[in-house]
Amino acid sequence: MKITDRLEEIKVMRDPIHSYIHIEYALLWKIIDTPEMQRLRRIHQLGGNFQVYHTAEHSRFSHSLGVYEIVRRMLSEIPSLVQEVSEQEKIVLMAASLVHDIGHGPFSHLFERITHKHHETMGKEILLDPSTGIHKLLVQYDQDLPDQIVSILERRHPKKILSQVLCSQLDADRMDYLLRDSYATGTSYGKFDLERILRTLRVEDGLLCVKESGVHSIEDYIMARYEMYWQVYLHPDAKSYDILILKLFERYEAIRSKRRIEALEAFYRPIDPRTFFKLDDYRFYTIVHDLQEDRDPYLSDLANRIMNRRLFDWVREPKQEMINSIQEKLTRRKIPLSIYTHEERLLEDMYLPYTERKKEEEIHVLDVCGKIWPLSAKSEIVKALLGMETKTCKYFYWQKISEES
Amino acid sequence: MKITDRLEEIKVMRDPIHSYIHIEYALLWKIIDTPEMQRLRRIHQLGGNFQVYHTAEHSRFSHSLGVYEIVRRMLSEIPSLVQEVSEQEKIVLMAASLVHDIGHGPFSHLFERITHKHHETMGKEILLDPSTGIHKLLVQYDQDLPDQIVSILERRHPKKILSQVLCSQLDADRMDYLLRDSYATGTSYGKFDLERILRTLRVEDGLLCVKESGVHSIEDYIMARYEMYWQVYLHPDAKSYDILILKLFERYEAIRSKRRIEALEAFYRPIDPRTFFKLDDYRFYTIVHDLQEDRDPYLSDLANRIMNRRLFDWVREPKQEMINSIQEKLTRRKIPLSIYTHEERLLEDMYLPYTERKKEEEIHVLDVCGKIWPLSAKSEIVKALLGMETKTCKYFYWQKISEES
Amino acid sequence: MKITDRLEEIKVMRDPIHSYIHIEYALLWKIIDTPEMQRLRRIHQLGGNFQVYHTAEHSRFSHSLGVYEIVRRMLSEIPSLVQEVSEQEKIVLMAASLVHDIGHGPFSHLFERITHKHHETMGKEILLDPSTGIHKLLVQYDQDLPDQIVSILERRHPKKILSQVLCSQLDADRMDYLLRDSYATGTSYGKFDLERILRTLRVEDGLLCVKESGVHSIEDYIMARYEMYWQVYLHPDAKSYDILILKLFERYEAIRSKRRIEALEAFYRPIDPRTFFKLDDYRFYTIVHDLQEDRDPYLSDLANRIMNRRLFDWVREPKQEMINSIQEKLTRRKIPLSIYTHEERLLEDMYLPYTERKKEEEIHVLDVCGKIWPLSAKSEIVKALLGMETKTCKYFYWQKISEES
Amino acid sequence: MKITDRLEEIKVMRDPIHSYIHIEYALLWKIIDTPEMQRLRRIHQLGGNFQVYHTAEHSRFSHSLGVYEIVRRMLSEIPSLVQEVSEQEKIVLMAASLVHDIGHGPFSHLFERITHKHHETMGKEILLDPSTGIHKLLVQYDQDLPDQIVSILERRHPKKILSQVLCSQLDADRMDYLLRDSYATGTSYGKFDLERILRTLRVEDGLLCVKESGVHSIEDYIMARYEMYWQVYLHPDAKSYDILILKLFERYEAIRSKRRIEALEAFYRPIDPRTFFKLDDYRFYTIVHDLQEDRDPYLSDLANRIMNRRLFDWVREPKQEMINSIQEKLTRRKIPLSIYTHEERLLEDMYLPYTERKKEEEIHVLDVCGKIWPLSAKSEIVKALLGMETKTCKYFYWQKISEES
Repeated sequence: MKITDRLEEIKVMRDPIHSYIHIEYALLWKIIDTPEMQRLRRIHQLGGNFQVYHTAEHSRFSHSLGVYEIVRRMLSEIPSLVQEVSEQEKIVLMAASLVHDIGHGPFSHLFERITHKHHETMGKEILLDPSTGIHKLLVQYDQDLPDQIVSILERRHPKKILSQVLCSQLDADRMDYLLRDSYATGTSYGKFDLERILRTLRVEDGLLCVKESGVHSIEDYIMARYEMYWQVYLHPDAKSYDILILKLFERYEAIRSKRRIEALEAFYRPIDPRTFFKLDDYRFYTIVHDLQEDRDPYLSDLANRIMNRRLFDWVREPKQEMINSIQEKLTRRKIPLSIYTHEERLLEDMYLPYTERKKEEEIHVLDVCGKIWPLSAKSEIVKALLGMETKTCKYFYWQKISEES
Repeated sequence: MKITDRLEEIKVMRDPIHSYIHIEYALLWKIIDTPEMQRLRRIHQLGGNFQVYHTAEHSRFSHSLGVYEIVRRMLSEIPSLVQEVSEQEKIVLMAASLVHDIGHGPFSHLFERITHKHHETMGKEILLDPSTGIHKLLVQYDQDLPDQIVSILERRHPKKILSQVLCSQLDADRMDYLLRDSYATGTSYGKFDLERILRTLRVEDGLLCVKESGVHSIEDYIMARYEMYWQVYLHPDAKSYDILILKLFERYEAIRSKRRIEALEAFYRPIDPRTFFKLDDYRFYTIVHDLQEDRDPYLSDLANRIMNRRLFDWVREPKQEMINSIQEKLTRRKIPLSIYTHEERLLEDMYLPYTERKKEEEIHVLDVCGKIWPLSAKSEIVKALLGMETKTCKYFYWQKISEES
Repeated sequence: MKITDRLEEIKVMRDPIHSYIHIEYALLWKIIDTPEMQRLRRIHQLGGNFQVYHTAEHSRFSHSLGVYEIVRRMLSEIPSLVQEVSEQEKIVLMAASLVHDIGHGPFSHLFERITHKHHETMGKEILLDPSTGIHKLLVQYDQDLPDQIVSILERRHPKKILSQVLCSQLDADRMDYLLRDSYATGTSYGKFDLERILRTLRVEDGLLCVKESGVHSIEDYIMARYEMYWQVYLHPDAKSYDILILKLFERYEAIRSKRRIEALEAFYRPIDPRTFFKLDDYRFYTIVHDLQEDRDPYLSDLANRIMNRRLFDWVREPKQEMINSIQEKLTRRKIPLSIYTHEERLLEDMYLPYTERKKEEEIHVLDVCGKIWPLSAKSEIVKALLGMETKTCKYFYWQKISEES
Repeated sequence: MKITDRLEEIKVMRDPIHSYIHIEYALLWKIIDTPEMQRLRRIHQLGGNFQVYHTAEHSRFSHSLGVYEIVRRMLSEIPSLVQEVSEQEKIVLMAASLVHDIGHGPFSHLFERITHKHHETMGKEILLDPSTGIHKLLVQYDQDLPDQIVSILERRHPKKILSQVLCSQLDADRMDYLLRDSYATGTSYGKFDLERILRTLRVEDGLLCVKESGVHSIEDYIMARYEMYWQVYLHPDAKSYDILILKLFERYEAIRSKRRIEALEAFYRPIDPRTFFKLDDYRFYTIVHDLQEDRDPYLSDLANRIMNRRLFDWVREPKQEMINSIQEKLTRRKIPLSIYTHEERLLEDMYLPYTERKKEEEIHVLDVCGKIWPLSAKSEIVKALLGMETKTCKYFYWQKISEES
């Protein structure tokens, strides 16, 4: 079997964002069918966000196919990429695009916070572990293939352009999730002109650049990202849902020395690819469903809140008197503050639409003379945005009192 | 608490099909927050269809909100409905629209085939059982409310128009699922002109009718339904996925006398609202995930096929020689035919876009003189469609041989 | 200059239907810039239909670009077409697709009714007349090019497949106008799945066929055409607008022996490419605008009606008493019936969604064994539609009385 | 006849942007049917822009209906507007929204540059002139109605909120044209979330405000405006087309002392409502079409360029050597520089997405405590944008040399 083996007939999969996902190479089709890829069907793309935007029920599986399709188009439509990258390198990059999210646990970033294991590390382990389905498949083609893919994902592949296509400020990953999350939530914020961006991308000096004539579509893309962060990804109600889950684990940690709950222990043992494989959103919800009947009243209450969307209330930048008054009321009712209140500091840095603090972060613009500029030099509006102030913002969450009264 | 109590502020939920879902009454908001409604987030709207259309990952929860929104609009936009139905009746009907799918088990119609319990019966039991969250909520408002809702769902409410809005050949249920499934799969087939239909609906003589000027938009809607059946709902690959699940249960039934598997027993005990409550797609997948390690080789293989989309192959209207040849090959490899082949007869009746065999099935057309006609009298194209022949069609499914060679 | 000369850089034009129109060959770019093509900017695609659907303001120029783009995609995406047609033939066919509507006069079919000159004849003359811009351009490339293009448009090119792509029951012309007219009017009726149709087209035995797996998308396309005819193209109000224009010409013919009006004479002289070139919707409206001040009261009134959308009323299948009563009322007010009433018979044949009366009319279906079938053999629904009855339908138009009272 | 008279049945007009335009009052329906409103069908919404974006063929008539529809929705959906404005005032405002563009001449802003008459002045004269159709209609309802409408359009109506709805930085006019121009051109830039903005608008202290929770949708709207300016409205090719028209008039002015051309004189006589009425894009193109045969070689060449889109080339911020070299080449060929080159200075101020230089320009934000803030105080990104630098930018246009060689 050779990496460049083609399928007898191109396979297509209907997709609302890209119309069709086109698969031409046998290796890529088989990657999609590995258990590790199929597992992504059971990981929500937006974690608990579907509790706020009820239609955001899409999975990382769909997203992964979408990223792959954008990469595939970039590799066949950007003139300089078509030439500079060999067929074999193209396929390896497309493979990397399919598996780039393979290390995401249930509720993604939340899972990282509980297990202290980053999804990129996890993904690397899955690709390199000889026992996984994906590893076994890859080495059938080339012993070195898992490492080649990892090197792209870790941005240390000698051909730097490969990583730029997949992970940079202007990469296929972001492009797909903005469009897909926008479609799934039914908001218009994440829309931008993918066709125009694809038409104006070029490679120059080994850098992925956008032609000067495409600067406005990039401005539009940056604003799309900014608005999606504010309106969807960092929605305080979605955050409130995450906090319920955190509180459930905190509560378990508090009683764990006295009683072990087998289903939850999976999160506290060392996570290796085998144990990780079983952890998905579906199992997580099944565990929490059962915890509603646990004998610990706080654990069962938190489980019930998670299952039935009984969220904490929240306020942004609360006055200290307000916090005091809430805490007092809760205490009077003997509601433990450590469980039923929460303070979260958010460095609003995350909300910055675009930065150029490091050279690698820049989006590059190619002018008509072939010279490369940072985006801010060619966009008055981006230049203005670089001057945006950032601050740390405090959110206070607490159990609604009214509902218990 | 009164049924007509309004929320302090109208709640809106972003929705890609209806732009927003608007909720004005406190009762309806609380219904959405019951555990039985929240459970629908864990039931896929299209069962295993997302294995074929990878983006069909939406739930019955989203669909239920959508049906509600169409009903709400009908009750405020169709002039004759606005007048003839009291505020209280409107709210009861809107409540019925929210809960109409509450009795769906995992993989919906498949679940019915295994447990021999119809989702409408199950839904009724849930509404009437004093232990369920939804029942407890409803009787806080009115002891009689659960039964009122059931009577609409069972089409025996004295005010017949209420049932017609929710369950007829031209009802809010179908309208939402066509549009929503079309949106989710990314196909254009299910699109039709909801705005125009809403504008041309009227009530006359207690019947929901469409004005003659709206006949073309109804033709379009009927064709949308027809195409969605062929292209999405009855897709042979989706059927193939269902068959894997059937085969898993058949295999368990074959060995069950020797060994009970606790997780699967839930499907064989009498299903009451309490036991039913735990059964959702998420738990089902978690059970099947674990069954991959079962010591019965067929059970574990079928479980693995379900988790990783290793579908059976299929052929429509096979020649007997073809079947013989397949069976022979399988037998030579000692592959049991009862597990790895399957024959399905499909009465293509289901594919009929529209029928008028019974009076109740008719879509009614109101002419300018106020006379009511069956749709076929006013649409040449529908009249032609009534003459469509139906036949029974045979599909043969079997395990692909090539993949084991 | 060679037909196969490419532009230095592919030109793209933004288009809401096809995202972009892509132009690769110099000849095609120059054709677009000829005065005869630019003139199509001043011919409304839907004649007077924008008086009913106010946003149907698009021109035959946009449509021509759209047809070209579909042809271009067919020639590069349908595997058998890619192989069987030489590069030169492809360019000639693309040229034909650009100019296929070049012979349309103001209000298209209405113009034909007045001048008795069919737009295809006119188009042919324009292409072959040595004085036209388009002819001069074409012969720079090849003396024979005008005739090659005409032979495709007249369906007598030896390579039959070329004409099928452009003019058959499943051609690029219809595909573009359904989608474009649907987009422009804001109706959903004309939508169908262009992507799927393009994916399932094949050439077999010199015939353009659709693979059996694409039959449902063809059913959808046929219904789209049917609904657009009823809802848009044959809308009785649009017809009413056409009748005003007919009446204006009839009135002029009645007084013409006494007085010639220079501006209108253009329609009565022999139409050659030079005189035709000046006749566009813009000039027509300018003439009619001025006619509002003509001293003939009927001519000026009809002109005023045309400019200000003062339509005649209409009724379908009127009873004779109704007609009598209307005529009597008008006569009492001394309103001449020949000018202010009109009877139109419409053979509803035109409304037939699809026919197979002649072999050439058939849409061909290619089954998996490579056998070709007429569509009706492979689609139960199309078979049913072939049995649709057609009848002649009478419309009666008259001047609203109320508005003069 | 009373202003508040309703139509027997609500009239609806299909519209791709708003789904339907709803008309409830007889006065408004009759306004649409006046010759002055119907004339707007013959004025392109985007002037010569359809020469660049070929599908931008829509008229000011469609746009006017769209603005009306947004105003109608604001008046029925914004709670504080519903209460504070009487039914009569609402109708007057809706009438004003319909007629707000009635004074636009052919090629809108270009026409103003040639005739030195602003479209708002012209519109006022049309409304107040006793001979116009619109005036005659309005005074049938109320002698004072024309002046009431003018006072809203001139922002001097005592009820300030009426003008804010129609003409401010966040008005129905801009909202419609961004969405409509975006739809017509097929670009995604002008899209923003109209539904959300409508939901968050309030009136406080007589000011139109947006609730703080709507700030992000306003940011999105401001960016939409900015991108549409750059990508569509100020496209240098569209400008190049405008320059051809300017040059034609300059040339005519140069020879006018020797020879008067009747058709062009209309632009040099005092413009009153009667003469203005005849001037529309259709007549303008008809005149220019005929000018192609004028005996003045420059006039006919410029006319030919206008009809056939033979644009001048352009460069932004040219070096003086470049200009010199171009001028030299042209001079060598005896091509008069005054006709075939053009320099345009553009104060990029116009491109500013949003300013708060004057109090009236501000978009107002209403916080949860009921306090009103300028937008920049509540949006970090808008605050950053206020700091954007503006500069004057020079464009140089000239006749392409290559095409004559």
